[in-house]
Amino acid sequence: MARHISIEHGEGGEMTHELIRDLFVKYFGHAEEAKFDAAVLDLPGSRIAFTTDTFTVKPPFFSGGNIGKLAVAGTVNDLAVSGAEPLYLSAGFVLEEGLSFDDLERIVASMAEEASKTGVRIITGDTKVVEKGSADKIFINTSGVGVVHPGWELHPEDIEEGDVVIVNGTIGDHGVAILAARGELGVATDLPTDSTSLYPLIRAVRDAGVRIRVMRDPTRGGLATTLVEITEDFGVIVELDQEAIPLKPEVEGACEILGLDPLFLANEGKVVFIVPEADAEKALAAMRAREEGRDATIIGRVVGRSEEGKLLLRSPVGSRRRIFRLLGMQLPRIC
Amino acid sequence: MARHISIEHGEGGEMTHELIRDLFVKYFGHAEEAKFDAAVLDLPGSRIAFTTDTFTVKPPFFSGGNIGKLAVAGTVNDLAVSGAEPLYLSAGFVLEEGLSFDDLERIVASMAEEASKTGVRIITGDTKVVEKGSADKIFINTSGVGVVHPGWELHPEDIEEGDVVIVNGTIGDHGVAILAARGELGVATDLPTDSTSLYPLIRAVRDAGVRIRVMRDPTRGGLATTLVEITEDFGVIVELDQEAIPLKPEVEGACEILGLDPLFLANEGKVVFIVPEADAEKALAAMRAREEGRDATIIGRVVGRSEEGKLLLRSPVGSRRRIFRLLGMQLPRIC
Repeated sequence: MARHISIEHGEGGEMTHELIRDLFVKYFGHAEEAKFDAAVLDLPGSRIAFTTDTFTVKPPFFSGGNIGKLAVAGTVNDLAVSGAEPLYLSAGFVLEEGLSFDDLERIVASMAEEASKTGVRIITGDTKVVEKGSADKIFINTSGVGVVHPGWELHPEDIEEGDVVIVNGTIGDHGVAILAARGELGVATDLPTDSTSLYPLIRAVRDAGVRIRVMRDPTRGGLATTLVEITEDFGVIVELDQEAIPLKPEVEGACEILGLDPLFLANEGKVVFIVPEADAEKALAAMRAREEGRDATIIGRVVGRSEEGKLLLRSPVGSRRRIFRLLGMQLPRIC
Repeated sequence: MARHISIEHGEGGEMTHELIRDLFVKYFGHAEEAKFDAAVLDLPGSRIAFTTDTFTVKPPFFSGGNIGKLAVAGTVNDLAVSGAEPLYLSAGFVLEEGLSFDDLERIVASMAEEASKTGVRIITGDTKVVEKGSADKIFINTSGVGVVHPGWELHPEDIEEGDVVIVNGTIGDHGVAILAARGELGVATDLPTDSTSLYPLIRAVRDAGVRIRVMRDPTRGGLATTLVEITEDFGVIVELDQEAIPLKPEVEGACEILGLDPLFLANEGKVVFIVPEADAEKALAAMRAREEGRDATIIGRVVGRSEEGKLLLRSPVGSRRRIFRLLGMQLPRIC
């Protein structure tokens, strides 16, 4: 039977992973660069990071933001977690005929505002318009270029037993904000998305002298999928402490009502770090001094090495279970 | 009355021009870099070019190519005409639920093949899937990074009276190929798209020692729109010789039947150069030695300077008329 693309292929779980492996890696070639959120490339005199992301979030407006803010912060964050200083973004728009000019202007204004927070410039763009019914209002691709300054490289090869896993705040906020905007929560909440540009926070951690082994932003697929990927890509075993993972009451409530796992809910303003235990307090202090890092905390540890990688979750009663990618995911079109 | 986005906003004509001016330039800031098809940016030790393009061509398969080939060649060409050596591409996919895996594989294979012609690497990517009816089969964004080697900069400021305008072959082929694939021609033709990566040809012209003042690829909006933009951006008056513009009989025939102007039909494998008259023969010889430059010819001249810029067309009987952008364009979703 002929295979077809299904919604699950786009949700960041096992089926997305397989699609990438069976198609994109097969034809475009596997690259070491693919182990980071942005490709890190050597040019004459410069090491740059280069990344791309397309945003199709539904609906395009939601509490605390819109697709434009997401598109800028998302690509800024992919560059930042790859060890780069984000410098330049591109913006490619697909607009559905009939989109109101006012909505487009609000989105573009948000993009400019979000870009100014990090000091990135939106420097090149493209606009396509398709007939009514051939797209859903607006899709935005942002690609980005940053510079990896000498000494800014990450060192996942140095990860060792005892290293700590830190997140800068509560998880799942973005997922719940989108569910609420879709009217799918059943309960009223105006919990805003956590979408924000993380470069200033990451810069503060770096400036504090923290040796960052690796960092990633747990967007589509959530904290669990991101940590599964880290363990696989760098051959380590990570144990999370379930009780330590910060959750807002609204997120906990929504997950209970809908049977969702917050570990797999999308975030748009979170970063997970692995750092040496000796640097943990420095890292936490640097983060907690900032609004977007106020709830920073240690959520787990590296407990060993294993070629295939392994993510474990320790429950409040002390039992351990292994966490895998979901096959599809819980929420389509979350970003 | 509230303004809305219409198909004409995406077709590369006057309305696209206004949208860019009223929205993107207003919020993202005008930049000298925007005068080229890619932004040219200085990094420590390197000058790079950075560009983006989203492809929504309908249908995705047509004679001589598909959306994947177009997406790679298009971005390679934007880098190449900006004076860069294309190095790295990103690929961002929006897939409609239900797209066949086989179609996607053909498209991805075409991308890999086209990338190999120039030696660019597709190094970072993203995939989103949207519900059936929320996109039209497949949209692809490609962004690209290239290096502008020392001495490779373009010199539009040196343009002077007597400089010649050269194109590497027949115009309008891509537009007619897409019309035929849509069944809108009324006559059968299997005229293939001219889509191809132009870096090797541009490299050959450069290696021949030609002083390239400026070059651009006349895609959406066609030869006329591209030349209007050149005259505006660099304050020159260009006169085209209508009889000198190379046209395939199929394109001439299709334009007569449908009342289209080939000067505004899209091309995907053409480049327009402005070079000093003294370098014209060298440039033509370098191009004609290659398949994609076999029909290279001089189509016009720079006849003066004017702050607002001006494009003139000299008819076979010697009369001159000024050419402006079309308001909308003749063909939506051509690339």
